[in-house]
Amino acid sequence: MGEFDLIRRYFASDARALPEVPLGIGDDCALIDAGGTLAVSTDMLVQGRHFFADVDPEALGHKALAVNLSDLAAMGARPIAFVLALALPVERARDDDWMTRFARGLHTLAQRSACALVGGDTTAGPLNVCITVFGRVDAHRALRRSGARVGDDVWVSGALGAAAAAVEAIASGRAPAPDARRALEWPTPRLALGQALLGCASSAIDLSDGLAGDLRHLTDASGVGAEIALDALPYAPSLQAFDAPERERYAVAGGDDYELCFTAPVARRGDVEAAGRATQTDVTRIGRIVSGAAIHWHRGGAPVAGGWRGYDHFASRQ
Amino acid sequence: MGEFDLIRRYFASDARALPEVPLGIGDDCALIDAGGTLAVSTDMLVQGRHFFADVDPEALGHKALAVNLSDLAAMGARPIAFVLALALPVERARDDDWMTRFARGLHTLAQRSACALVGGDTTAGPLNVCITVFGRVDAHRALRRSGARVGDDVWVSGALGAAAAAVEAIASGRAPAPDARRALEWPTPRLALGQALLGCASSAIDLSDGLAGDLRHLTDASGVGAEIALDALPYAPSLQAFDAPERERYAVAGGDDYELCFTAPVARRGDVEAAGRATQTDVTRIGRIVSGAAIHWHRGGAPVAGGWRGYDHFASRQ
Repeated sequence: MGEFDLIRRYFASDARALPEVPLGIGDDCALIDAGGTLAVSTDMLVQGRHFFADVDPEALGHKALAVNLSDLAAMGARPIAFVLALALPVERARDDDWMTRFARGLHTLAQRSACALVGGDTTAGPLNVCITVFGRVDAHRALRRSGARVGDDVWVSGALGAAAAAVEAIASGRAPAPDARRALEWPTPRLALGQALLGCASSAIDLSDGLAGDLRHLTDASGVGAEIALDALPYAPSLQAFDAPERERYAVAGGDDYELCFTAPVARRGDVEAAGRATQTDVTRIGRIVSGAAIHWHRGGAPVAGGWRGYDHFASRQ
Repeated sequence: MGEFDLIRRYFASDARALPEVPLGIGDDCALIDAGGTLAVSTDMLVQGRHFFADVDPEALGHKALAVNLSDLAAMGARPIAFVLALALPVERARDDDWMTRFARGLHTLAQRSACALVGGDTTAGPLNVCITVFGRVDAHRALRRSGARVGDDVWVSGALGAAAAAVEAIASGRAPAPDARRALEWPTPRLALGQALLGCASSAIDLSDGLAGDLRHLTDASGVGAEIALDALPYAPSLQAFDAPERERYAVAGGDDYELCFTAPVARRGDVEAAGRATQTDVTRIGRIVSGAAIHWHRGGAPVAGGWRGYDHFASRQ
C-alpha cells in the first residue's frame, strides 16, 4: 500500500463536509474558514521519549491528538481541525492491525472533540507522530500564560502524578497500577473546562512537563512568583501506594498529566468552582500568586526546598 | 540547553508583532487572525528519505519550509505563518553551528516569503523536521486539483529533472552537477506564480514526487486523462550530460522538483504567459487534458509506453 492510500484508507473518514472546512484531505492544502481568530499548536511524539516501543497503538493515536487538544484547552479554544504528519517504519505501514488501531484511537477522540482531520503527510522513517491542531477563540479572551496577577489563586484540574509513576514503573520493568497506566496512555484534554474558564481565569497552561516546570513558564510569562501548598495538591489515588516524598515528586516534577494549571482572582473562586461543576472536572486550589520571580513550596505551612524541575527533553541523564 | 531555550534561541526572531498574528511563539498556541479562509498544509522531512545525513543544515532549513510553501503555491495561497516541530539527536541540539545554520536557512526563506514562525515543538529523537504552513486564499478561487477540463492545456513551471539526477548521483557516490545539487537542496517555491494564476488556471498541483505521479493525482481528482509531449518538457540544463531516456526518466519519474503543474483553458494561454512574465517564472505548455482516465506520453508525435510512476515512500525497493 502506498503513502497516498495510507492517508485515504486510515485517516480520511472524517474529511466530511464541514462549514468551517471547505476543503479537507486530498489536495495540496486544506482550507479552513476561520472568519476570526484561529488557535494553532503543534506537538511531535517520538518513540522512546513520549511512548514505549510496545505502546498500544490505539492509545498512541489517542494520546497524539490529546496532547495537542490539551494546548487548545489551555487557551480556552474550541477545536476545529487538525493535520497529521506520520513517519513510520515500512513494516508498520503494512501492519493493517496496528494502523487500524492507531487510526481508531485518533478518530474516536477527534469525533468526541468535533475536531476534523483536514490534511496529512506520511513517510517511511523512525516512528514519529506530529499533529498540528486548530481551534477557535477570541484573541482578547484567550487564556494566555501572561495574565497572572499578584493575589490570584493558583488552581489545577483533575489529579496529578499518576502518569509519571507509570512511566517510572514501566521503565524499571514493573507493571504500573491500572489507573496510572490509563492516566499515562489515555489523557483527557480539558477542553470543556478551558472554554468554561474564559472570562474567569486570568492565565492558564497545560501540564505536560510537570507542575514545577510548567508553572514556572506561567509565572515567568506573567512576571510574578507563586506559593504552592504541597498538602493541597490533588494527588492521583494510585499514588497512595507511595510515601509522601515520592508522591510529591511524581505530582510536582513528573510529566504527562495534561491537566490545566490556571490562575484566577480570589473574587472568582465561585465562578471557577461553577466551571468545574458545569464541565464535570475536579478543580483544586493549590496556592497563590505572589510578587517576585520564585516559586515557594510549602508543606504543613512551612517552606520546603523543592529543587524540582520540569521534564527537559535535552537534559543530561544519569 | 533545554528544549524551551532551543525554540527561543534559534527560532523566535520573527515572532514579531504582525497584524495577522496576535500571539506568536511562547504560549500553548499561536493565534492567527484569519478573517477569512486559511490554507493549511503539513510536510515531514526524514533523514535518509528526504535528505542525506551530511546535508548542509542551511539547505535543510530552507527546504523544509520550501516544500510546504510549494503546497501553498499550488493553491494560489499567500503565506502567512508556519509552525515547526523538530526531533533531533541530543548532540545536534547542542551543536550551535549546525542549529544556527539550520535556523538561518529557515529564516531567510521565511522572511523572503513573509511567512512568520508562530509556534514550535522540539524533542530528542531521530532527525525529523515537520512544518505546517498557513496561507490566505479565497476558497472559491483556490487552485484545486479537481478543476481540469477536457481540452485544457497542461503547463509546468521552471525546469524538471535536475533534483532527481542529483539524488541518483549522490546515492551512487558521484558528485552531482552544481546546478543539480542546487535544484535538490534549494528548491524555489512558486508562490508568486501560483497567486498570479488565480482566476486563470483551472487546476494545479506541485511536483514533489515526479510529474507522472503528481499529474496522475490531478487527472484523477478531475476525472480526466492527459496527453503529454515528452519533447515539450522543460528539461533542466544540467540534464544535457545524459542521454534522452535518462533525461526523460529524471523529468517524468523523478521527484523533488517543486515546480507547479497546472491546467488552463486554451483561451487563457496569453494570460498564463503573462503570469509567467510578471512573476519572472518560466512556464511551458507540455500537453493537453483529454477524456478518459489515462495519461498518454508522446515522443515525436508517436505514443510511447511510459510505465513511469511517481515516488512512493512505502514502495518496495531492490
